[in-house]
Amino acid sequence: MLKIRRIPIDTYPENTAFVLRNGSGYSAEQFQALRKIRIFCQDGEILATLALVDDESIIGPDEIGLGEQAFARLCLAEGTEVCIEQARPPASLDFVRRKIGGDALSESEVSAIVRDIACHLYSPMEIGAYLVACAGFMTTPETLALTRAMIDVGNRLHWDSPLVVDKHCIGGIPGNRTSMIVVPIVAAHGLLCPKTSSRAITSPSGTADTMEVLANVDLSEEQMKAIVAKEHAVLAWGGRVDLSPADDVLISVERPLRLDDHEQMVASILSKKIAAGSTHLVLDIPVGPTAKVRSQSEAVRLRKLFEYVARHLGLETVIVFSDGSQPVGRGVGPVLEARDVMAVLRNEPDAPDDLRDHAVALAGHMLDFDPAIEGGRGYARALELLASGAALAAMERLIEAQGRNEQKLTPGVYKAEIGARKAGRVVAIDCERISRIARIAGAPMDKGAGLDLLHKVGEAVRPGEALYRIHANSETGLGFARDLAEENAGYEIA
Amino acid sequence: MLKIRRIPIDTYPENTAFVLRNGSGYSAEQFQALRKIRIFCQDGEILATLALVDDESIIGPDEIGLGEQAFARLCLAEGTEVCIEQARPPASLDFVRRKIGGDALSESEVSAIVRDIACHLYSPMEIGAYLVACAGFMTTPETLALTRAMIDVGNRLHWDSPLVVDKHCIGGIPGNRTSMIVVPIVAAHGLLCPKTSSRAITSPSGTADTMEVLANVDLSEEQMKAIVAKEHAVLAWGGRVDLSPADDVLISVERPLRLDDHEQMVASILSKKIAAGSTHLVLDIPVGPTAKVRSQSEAVRLRKLFEYVARHLGLETVIVFSDGSQPVGRGVGPVLEARDVMAVLRNEPDAPDDLRDHAVALAGHMLDFDPAIEGGRGYARALELLASGAALAAMERLIEAQGRNEQKLTPGVYKAEIGARKAGRVVAIDCERISRIARIAGAPMDKGAGLDLLHKVGEAVRPGEALYRIHANSETGLGFARDLAEENAGYEIA
Repeated sequence: MLKIRRIPIDTYPENTAFVLRNGSGYSAEQFQALRKIRIFCQDGEILATLALVDDESIIGPDEIGLGEQAFARLCLAEGTEVCIEQARPPASLDFVRRKIGGDALSESEVSAIVRDIACHLYSPMEIGAYLVACAGFMTTPETLALTRAMIDVGNRLHWDSPLVVDKHCIGGIPGNRTSMIVVPIVAAHGLLCPKTSSRAITSPSGTADTMEVLANVDLSEEQMKAIVAKEHAVLAWGGRVDLSPADDVLISVERPLRLDDHEQMVASILSKKIAAGSTHLVLDIPVGPTAKVRSQSEAVRLRKLFEYVARHLGLETVIVFSDGSQPVGRGVGPVLEARDVMAVLRNEPDAPDDLRDHAVALAGHMLDFDPAIEGGRGYARALELLASGAALAAMERLIEAQGRNEQKLTPGVYKAEIGARKAGRVVAIDCERISRIARIAGAPMDKGAGLDLLHKVGEAVRPGEALYRIHANSETGLGFARDLAEENAGYEIA
Repeated sequence: MLKIRRIPIDTYPENTAFVLRNGSGYSAEQFQALRKIRIFCQDGEILATLALVDDESIIGPDEIGLGEQAFARLCLAEGTEVCIEQARPPASLDFVRRKIGGDALSESEVSAIVRDIACHLYSPMEIGAYLVACAGFMTTPETLALTRAMIDVGNRLHWDSPLVVDKHCIGGIPGNRTSMIVVPIVAAHGLLCPKTSSRAITSPSGTADTMEVLANVDLSEEQMKAIVAKEHAVLAWGGRVDLSPADDVLISVERPLRLDDHEQMVASILSKKIAAGSTHLVLDIPVGPTAKVRSQSEAVRLRKLFEYVARHLGLETVIVFSDGSQPVGRGVGPVLEARDVMAVLRNEPDAPDDLRDHAVALAGHMLDFDPAIEGGRGYARALELLASGAALAAMERLIEAQGRNEQKLTPGVYKAEIGARKAGRVVAIDCERISRIARIAGAPMDKGAGLDLLHKVGEAVRPGEALYRIHANSETGLGFARDLAEENAGYEIA
């Protein structure tokens, strides 16, 4: 029996257990060959990757150290006595091996895998094995089964309405913060639009990060329900309400492996939307040379897969292909994006056109879901709600209801301008490069960090004229970002 | 700049870096999304998985902690100043992604992957991704390219002889310690047989573990050469001489994922044999219901793949299918196996027949490589060298030359007998189950732990009569093994 000790080390997303190499009474090195041990007692159990410790000041002979995540997941007090043994691999790993061998899996097999992943029984290596096997090939019924299983293992919100509208973008385009304009427009019209968004994982900002500049987004299910009852809408962080938790685990492995196959994307997005209680969805797929989807034919294939799964799960879906050839708006990073969003809602004359036009188009599609709106009139109605200030008023009410962020966040105080190397016209802006520079400047953790794009595609520039301004709140961040931008600014001028 | 500090934590096979979450001047959490950082200075660099620390007593704000493996691999003194950045994935990972997408890779692409793996640039998750993608399909030219690349990244032994004989078994059969009988027979005849063996990874003993009961196996290349010059042979641990180091890295991921496709097995075995300088190989493939290869058709497919790769690499190979339906010999675990081996060499009347017969057959095939031996006479010659005591004398000389183990190791003092549940005849013994029970008793780390099989297939037993005896050197080990054996002893009686 070993006593639990909490070790202040965070090995996300992996559970880690720390055991003294010699003297614990266990031959710890034998466990290490298969890396994973089972830690258990009457009140709970967990699987964890084993780290061997050679210093008793870190962990004693009668103790087992649990990293922060393992400690939180096992949920037992320090000092609790537990046993350890070589972990038997989760039974569903046999299905993963069948998938590796080229089989299509049944619905119940997919479901068993997803359950075990959501319970953190898989190591990142095992999750990677499953994802790579799926990337080899995955049938549409398997994709449907995966989506269904991901919905089933998480929480599900219910809104007691036959029309719960939602929008989602597959991502990849910096500055594309349409949700924060679309949701107030739709709410002003009176449709139910409880929007849950994610934080950035590898991008410079997620909708939740940008909205947080203005208001609290960390809302419980009860708080969300109260706000939606009053305002028809909410702009909340989805992580709090445990929608499709298996998706979060899968993403933690997909990102470092840079896996991005359509099947996982469809299951990820649709499972979260359906778990959030949406009945009608507008889905935005930007297409462009540096976007996630790079050709029209790829976009069509992806659209068909979304439609297949959504139809079988009873989610009414309209799919919109949009221009993914450059960032949307001017700001990239939470504070700068929030500035653009508010400029559009306030109908400021210099508000970015492209952000406004794209948001109004999407809001129009959402309003078209309303049976009371005459076919095709959604777009005009959206324009009207924006122009009249009704959308701005709805946004202000949402901010108040969620809890206004009283900190006045401003763009980062350390600044650098990146100039054009030659005269000409901007012919392309690399979305991936812009994201990377903004991120290394500190976005999204540093809310004020990011890029302010001073020129967009089609505009003429003189040599040395600033293409964009980098903002950061640390000299280190600014320096990293400037170095990266000077190596390759992400702008093509011709 | 952060100062290196060595952290006495072993996270094999992963490099781990420990950074303070707050206060290091880096926004450490951003690095965490992609998990891997690059640690570098003028004198070296390394990639490592990031663990965030929330306690300054473990790591200070100006420090970076390196786990034992990362510290050893980076090879810089404590206190050396290094920088960190988000690791850019190794360039060859693009080839892995192509493989995931279904492409066959070229020789230079496979070679780039193997080089990066050998340099520890891949995380276990990335290695898993490559292995699973290969498991989907792999062409024979890719298998050949993999084998060649694995040879090229490691050390290679040269023996200055046109005939360097070797034997290898693909494993999976407990107690199958033929090498320790075959090598002395072949050495007694005068063929050059410098045998390198592995330690057990998931089995209860490897040849190196069993040989170590009798003699030192941790020999440098110089020591091996000196012994071979004198005795024609050696029985050494291969890990010391750095043959096919990429294989060791791949195995550290294949085992926990229980991947066992033919292509990896062929590349693993043949790369080690060719790097060890062998020119002629006898390869033993046991076939049986609980062996690694379970049907004759699978055995034939595997044989053909071995032959294809061996032929292209100029390794003369004879492949032998053997009976893999039950363990070989009586002892399972280092001490008990060494006892059986010496009983055969000493021609003791109760020495296990099956171990002797199998070893003599393999030795016969090896002797047939000698041009001086008349076709098919190798078997008779092997029998003669064993019966005359020449093989025993060769073994004793080898033990002396390598350094006799003066510790008199004995079977574990904690013992338990597992009895038959009913009367009948033993019709099958489960190799996997027997291995697992021996392993949990403590083998191979605890040399005396293991199983002594008192009945083999075909023998009659009475109810309660002992099927085997478990040995261990700790009560815990004995208890674990007995529990497992009582749940399922691995014997079928009918």
